Amino acid sequence: MENHKAAAAAVAYRLLNQTKHKSNKILHQRRLIPNSTQLNPSSSTSGFTQASVPLNQFVASYRWDLRKSSLIHTHHRKFGSVASTIVERNPNFSTINHDDLIYFDKILGAKKVIQDPEELQTANTDWMHKYKGSSKLMLQPENTTELSQILDYCNSRRLAVVPQGGNTGLVGGSVPVFDEIIINTRRMNSVISFDQVSGVLVCEAGCILENLISFLDKKGFIMPLDLGAKGSCQIGGNISTNAGGLRLVRYGSLHGTVLGLEVVLANGSVIDMLGTLRKDNTGYDLKHLFIGSEGSLGIITKVSILTPPKLSSVNIAFLACEDYISCQKLLFQAKRRLGEILSAFEFLDSQAMNLVLHHLDGVRNPLPSSIYNFYVLIETTGSNESNDKATLEAFLLHAMENGLVSDGALAQDFSQASSFWHIREGIPEALQKAGAVYKYDLSLPVEKMYDLVEEMRTRLGAAANVVGYGHLGDGNLHLNVSARQYDDACRF
Amino acid sequence: MENHKAAAAAVAYRLLNQTKHKSNKILHQRRLIPNSTQLNPSSSTSGFTQASVPLNQFVASYRWDLRKSSLIHTHHRKFGSVASTIVERNPNFSTINHDDLIYFDKILGAKKVIQDPEELQTANTDWMHKYKGSSKLMLQPENTTELSQILDYCNSRRLAVVPQGGNTGLVGGSVPVFDEIIINTRRMNSVISFDQVSGVLVCEAGCILENLISFLDKKGFIMPLDLGAKGSCQIGGNISTNAGGLRLVRYGSLHGTVLGLEVVLANGSVIDMLGTLRKDNTGYDLKHLFIGSEGSLGIITKVSILTPPKLSSVNIAFLACEDYISCQKLLFQAKRRLGEILSAFEFLDSQAMNLVLHHLDGVRNPLPSSIYNFYVLIETTGSNESNDKATLEAFLLHAMENGLVSDGALAQDFSQASSFWHIREGIPEALQKAGAVYKYDLSLPVEKMYDLVEEMRTRLGAAANVVGYGHLGDGNLHLNVSARQYDDACRF
Repeated sequence: MENHKAAAAAVAYRLLNQTKHKSNKILHQRRLIPNSTQLNPSSSTSGFTQASVPLNQFVASYRWDLRKSSLIHTHHRKFGSVASTIVERNPNFSTINHDDLIYFDKILGAKKVIQDPEELQTANTDWMHKYKGSSKLMLQPENTTELSQILDYCNSRRLAVVPQGGNTGLVGGSVPVFDEIIINTRRMNSVISFDQVSGVLVCEAGCILENLISFLDKKGFIMPLDLGAKGSCQIGGNISTNAGGLRLVRYGSLHGTVLGLEVVLANGSVIDMLGTLRKDNTGYDLKHLFIGSEGSLGIITKVSILTPPKLSSVNIAFLACEDYISCQKLLFQAKRRLGEILSAFEFLDSQAMNLVLHHLDGVRNPLPSSIYNFYVLIETTGSNESNDKATLEAFLLHAMENGLVSDGALAQDFSQASSFWHIREGIPEALQKAGAVYKYDLSLPVEKMYDLVEEMRTRLGAAANVVGYGHLGDGNLHLNVSARQYDDACRF
Repeated sequence: MENHKAAAAAVAYRLLNQTKHKSNKILHQRRLIPNSTQLNPSSSTSGFTQASVPLNQFVASYRWDLRKSSLIHTHHRKFGSVASTIVERNPNFSTINHDDLIYFDKILGAKKVIQDPEELQTANTDWMHKYKGSSKLMLQPENTTELSQILDYCNSRRLAVVPQGGNTGLVGGSVPVFDEIIINTRRMNSVISFDQVSGVLVCEAGCILENLISFLDKKGFIMPLDLGAKGSCQIGGNISTNAGGLRLVRYGSLHGTVLGLEVVLANGSVIDMLGTLRKDNTGYDLKHLFIGSEGSLGIITKVSILTPPKLSSVNIAFLACEDYISCQKLLFQAKRRLGEILSAFEFLDSQAMNLVLHHLDGVRNPLPSSIYNFYVLIETTGSNESNDKATLEAFLLHAMENGLVSDGALAQDFSQASSFWHIREGIPEALQKAGAVYKYDLSLPVEKMYDLVEEMRTRLGAAANVVGYGHLGDGNLHLNVSARQYDDACRF
């Protein structure tokens, strides 16, 4: 096993070393430059990728992101003007030939070697329909061995590949830039084991998040992460992008909950780091290199993850605040007064609320008497229904008495709770229906977070609708700029 | 910064690559072979280092540990008989000369260059008095720059060093094997910043854990880890050893709570990964390489860590169980019924209890009517005193009705709570007073955990007292073998 670990470290070393080694281990054609304008490639409303930068340095962060990617490809780019950056296909990559197809057919069988134009069109296009590759081949390995054989072969033939899970990412990371072979993990979707005592789930990387949630629900457990794309996104992609999502404020990041991984490196080597122990201090903990490195160091094939017990009592409040400072104070109070039962603290501004009300069917404002500047969704999860409800009500009463909350509603049943969540989770869809959208996903100190939205509004004026929402509890802002159409000449 | 990241990855690469590179970056003389017999170098009662192994493979794990260490030193060793392994000083290391001392005096000032025999004797000896080095020099840098200058110089002069924090480790990792220069971080003990809204603490690595706990207490927060050695151990050492401790069951591992690190590599390069954001997905997350790698990749100098709010209600129960299966069932029930308020679940066997009762002053058994086979300490932490107490009492009543618990006591005040904790935390001290002790720190599936203790008891018979205790909630067993004296001929 230590040889594999050495191999993994070697890959990290080469990639980080700004590649004097012109390695032939080419794993992931990361999309750098959108077909349409996109200032920041690290944006996503699914919490998939965050650009974490001081307020005044997001351009620097963007450059870093380009640099990281530049280790893998030879791209022409200009830093001064992102919109006009040109990407060229690296001529060192081969193109697929007849022999390649015969080989893939042989190791996988024909049904896992996809050349059908319709299927390929879907796989070449991201969820937002902003990024489009031109891959002529999608492979759907069914297990680690097949995936390893594919990568070994592609490595020796210098065929570029892009790993793809549920293809729900919003930054184009899961679709090809050019003609890379798409390696889709959808067929690797089995639960391998679940331990009722420890709550440790072991499964294949292609398991859809919502399926895992359903599986665990029957056992009395939950996944430690949840996000809007759960119906399609896969756990392997969640981990590769270090997805945060809606429960991070309660259950922490995947670096804390992922106990083990199996990964295939670009040369086909399989690294078994699939431990299931809550504590494991043997050797260097290399699995963390693969959490959040977006497939650039290897493709995750199996996952071991700690799942919390499902608690019986869930309460949801939808609140209105006059200003952003009230939202912050409410968060501070919630952490203290709701303490251990706080499981989500989300916010949206009136622009986001308006978009949802106008573009999604059947959505109504739970606080219709007025349009407020900010809305906050608070969820508690605990084990005692009456205690939790009393705690939440006392907290809300206190907040209203102190003027932090202008209005509020407590969900009375499951349907109402779902309708509250639907507002928050429906924002990406509403934005997509509203027209062109420039998406940013930023970590910022909570107190400065909304300044950025206001600054963008000032700069853009009437040219666009600037929308702010996200995981206030984690300091994670989804800044979205909604415009009638994409405009390459746009300069912020 | 990416150059530094590359440098860090390069170090990892070299170390992992079983060192064809005979690098001159020699950081850490890890103690492999005790002066007295010690089968497993990865043992610690402070939760500092765990050997995580399947029940039947702990010898293999021990070998792996040796292998990891062997990347740094040329040691003669035999795998067949650990007790008779011979360690020789690597002749490639230099010895300290007069010019070296003049240089250190110049950059640090005389008071931080320690040659006093008494001080050195303490620093050369571990807490258990089992391991003893023969260092002639201890340096106590006051800041990152000084530490960087020291390592840069030692690297160029090929002087071996050993990083040392509070020197509370139980496996000899913090004391020299031969004459390595001790780099002690005690003077780097300032809190740099604390953010009341986010709960993010930034401090130097030499801060003593208990001082941080006190500092945070005044602000209404707690550290996400706690352990028996808190009065002396330093946060840098806690992170370097990925300490688990008593709160892991509630707040998770340091991989989840450490947000950022500043680290100095063996060549003196300073890597700034000192982020303070809850989410940060920019670039590869290299800080995880330094969490748990025990100083072998670099010395941690600054730390950014997420601290939870201090909750007002703490309840502690001390319970007796007839057998190990009852302890397991109790844990399963506690996770479910105490849910979000469970903050510790510790266990000890009757042998551990007897040791504490016999060797520590002023300790009494809270359940004196009989000696039970197992004791469990359960702590809850929440925000509502009466609710929490009611929840715990209902849980205990249910457990007694179901025969899982034979007897129990609920702490009625702070003093009683402390006395309950003192039993659990006093076990290492009691063991030390009882004579020679062979210490093991193991992660195992909970259901198999105690089998190992019983197997050892069977094998050793009357030759030794085998004691089992630890963090049942995390599957972490402290297996200790107490004997009259150390015996190199001992074979298990």
